[in-house]
Amino acid sequence: MVVLHHPDPAEIELVDVLAALGHPVRLDIARALADGEERYCGEVLPDVPKSSKTHHWRALRESGVLFQRHEGRRFYLSLRRADLDARFPGLLDLVLTEPR
Amino acid sequence: MVVLHHPDPAEIELVDVLAALGHPVRLDIARALADGEERYCGEVLPDVPKSSKTHHWRALRESGVLFQRHEGRRFYLSLRRADLDARFPGLLDLVLTEPR
Repeated sequence: MVVLHHPDPAEIELVDVLAALGHPVRLDIARALADGEERYCGEVLPDVPKSSKTHHWRALRESGVLFQRHEGRRFYLSLRRADLDARFPGLLDLVLTEPR
Repeated sequence: MVVLHHPDPAEIELVDVLAALGHPVRLDIARALADGEERYCGEVLPDVPKSSKTHHWRALRESGVLFQRHEGRRFYLSLRRADLDARFPGLLDLVLTEPR
């Protein structure tokens, strides 16, 4: 079983979240998950090559922006909205709705 | 005379601002200027080596987070609060006041 590191809510650092979202592909990934639904990774930005996205899943996961759950050979992504809203109220709404 | 590029307010991009603030030293620089006053560069994070800060002034200036004004051999920094507040309402307040 693949065990992926996800920071505890209290360990999520603002500076890491800003850095994670401060990249066009990663911001688009977060926006593609903005409704809070879990999605199969292949559904998220299907036009971006997988090799490019793999690195970004990790940056988003390790900063605390998203959950990455493996099921067999597939994995699923969801935004850690509740954790982020509790820790940095308003940030996610602002970042996901502003013009890029 | 040194002419430094500063993006026009309408050209400031959210993703660039997030990337600029998504670094501990740069976030501290922005926080040191949070009151809106212009400061001599040497006053801002005096304990961080100049060689390390020079790179960060540029990232903050080119993303639209701060103004950098030269006067003789010195330069002065100020946060572009009005421009950022107009473009991304609430972002700066949130980022500068949340725990890091």
